[in-house]
Amino acid sequence: MSNDERTHQTWAWAKGHGTENDFVLLPDPDGTVHGALTSSASISWIAAVCDRRRGLGADGVIRVVRSEALASAHGVPAAKQAAADGAEWFMDYRNADGSTSEMCGNGIRVLAQWLAEEGRLDAASPVSPVLIGTRAGTLRLSNQADGRWSVDMGVVTVTTASEVTVGEHTWTAIGVDTGNPHAVVEVVDLADAGALTEPPAYDTGIYPDGVNVEFVVPVGERHVRMRVHERGSGETRSCGTGACAAAILAERLAGSPPRPATYAVDVPGGCLEVTLRGDGHAVLTGPAKIVVRGTMIWSGP
Amino acid sequence: MSNDERTHQTWAWAKGHGTENDFVLLPDPDGTVHGALTSSASISWIAAVCDRRRGLGADGVIRVVRSEALASAHGVPAAKQAAADGAEWFMDYRNADGSTSEMCGNGIRVLAQWLAEEGRLDAASPVSPVLIGTRAGTLRLSNQADGRWSVDMGVVTVTTASEVTVGEHTWTAIGVDTGNPHAVVEVVDLADAGALTEPPAYDTGIYPDGVNVEFVVPVGERHVRMRVHERGSGETRSCGTGACAAAILAERLAGSPPRPATYAVDVPGGCLEVTLRGDGHAVLTGPAKIVVRGTMIWSGP
Repeated sequence: MSNDERTHQTWAWAKGHGTENDFVLLPDPDGTVHGALTSSASISWIAAVCDRRRGLGADGVIRVVRSEALASAHGVPAAKQAAADGAEWFMDYRNADGSTSEMCGNGIRVLAQWLAEEGRLDAASPVSPVLIGTRAGTLRLSNQADGRWSVDMGVVTVTTASEVTVGEHTWTAIGVDTGNPHAVVEVVDLADAGALTEPPAYDTGIYPDGVNVEFVVPVGERHVRMRVHERGSGETRSCGTGACAAAILAERLAGSPPRPATYAVDVPGGCLEVTLRGDGHAVLTGPAKIVVRGTMIWSGP
Repeated sequence: MSNDERTHQTWAWAKGHGTENDFVLLPDPDGTVHGALTSSASISWIAAVCDRRRGLGADGVIRVVRSEALASAHGVPAAKQAAADGAEWFMDYRNADGSTSEMCGNGIRVLAQWLAEEGRLDAASPVSPVLIGTRAGTLRLSNQADGRWSVDMGVVTVTTASEVTVGEHTWTAIGVDTGNPHAVVEVVDLADAGALTEPPAYDTGIYPDGVNVEFVVPVGERHVRMRVHERGSGETRSCGTGACAAAILAERLAGSPPRPATYAVDVPGGCLEVTLRGDGHAVLTGPAKIVVRGTMIWSGP
């Protein structure tokens, strides 16, 4: 789909956020509205939509599409698997630069909330799990009674310890793999991480492709607060996988109580909870808010 | 209008920008849709709409309303004057925090462009001036052949010289009054102004209510580049009155040629032009882009 074709057409849209990680949703149930969303014109369009000054502004775009439709119309293998898994809906996620991303732990809650508000989920009951397809596999969510959503983020494992340095501070970091790599450090004061306008110094031998760094302070029983520097994005208001990584440190600070155990993880954009289960899975719980929905006619950046 | 009344209703909206100073437009020709926009619920709503993470995101909101309607329905004196001046339309402007502001030199171009694209201006000809009411008086605009808009910003006067300091650098500033106060300094390198995360140090005896500071480098004949720190906002991508103030310095750098003379002023968000006229007026010319328009149903931040 060329940029010209996108211009002066009417699109359905919504915007929402999870702990201030914000997304433009593009409803496209049958996969017929936005094409494959992979052409260079589509990538440019998404980047323009996400631009906070020249566009609408968001951390990413989520096309809401049926797994079956995405599989059959655009041949996305993960969508075929999702359909086989029984996940009616698929999170077709793009970063703010238009590139494709596997998953976003805050975005998938926003998508689930939109589906619930639009009456597009069969399972409206809090006890029934909802399956949603992603490029990182089919994920299981549940709607909490208080309106928050929980998502099973899969197995979280401890990897190699390393060192992280910011300015005059050097810390020993726990390595955590949540599907992407994290280095988690306990700090005395979150201000010790400085302005974080530059990436923290880390062990490039252990993390040749970069690493997300979490700075964590304990604030109470099974309760920590964190700042996060995401590789490629800089400091962000929230990071779902980062909260899961921080929970590993929170578990150690709490004396490694028996699993399952739940840890509160405050991020700059709000409050998350992470339950570490006996089978190694982390379940992330947090708010999801649909702020606005409607139609838009795009004219260009 | 209470926040509850705003929620779950459908509003017309648009978003546009002028040199990356971006605005949400709320079309309300008869002044019947958005009330006076002065209640505490309305102020909260505008602040929520402008929030870049929890809302839509913008530097401000422009309600598009007929001067006559705003005068009769909400008793705004400047709107009554605008109607008497023959300005059909009024820029009812709010800052991102919901407070009322008199004028915005970038916003008024965006408003004019929206009116033109919607076919709501009688005077479509480039040579015919368009009058638009603001709380700072009725302003005269003209649509340039290349799609840019010019706006007569009124009389710009030189005031008291003072000193501005950032870190180890201290400069002598020209004082310029464009309706709001400016201190303009010539720098060797725009990087000398530093990160501008803090306001520059200025003479609080001369500027007890604060001052906008422009850092300017010459880049060619009658052509400068600037950064601006706006009081209350910090460093911004563009400032219309700041560009007019910078043109005063550009005029001196050019050896004060006879007026009228036109100066190019590059800001971080794009390129502006300022014509200094013999009668002391500054005419600001720049781009205005409507990015997206449509409807929205607000659910809350």
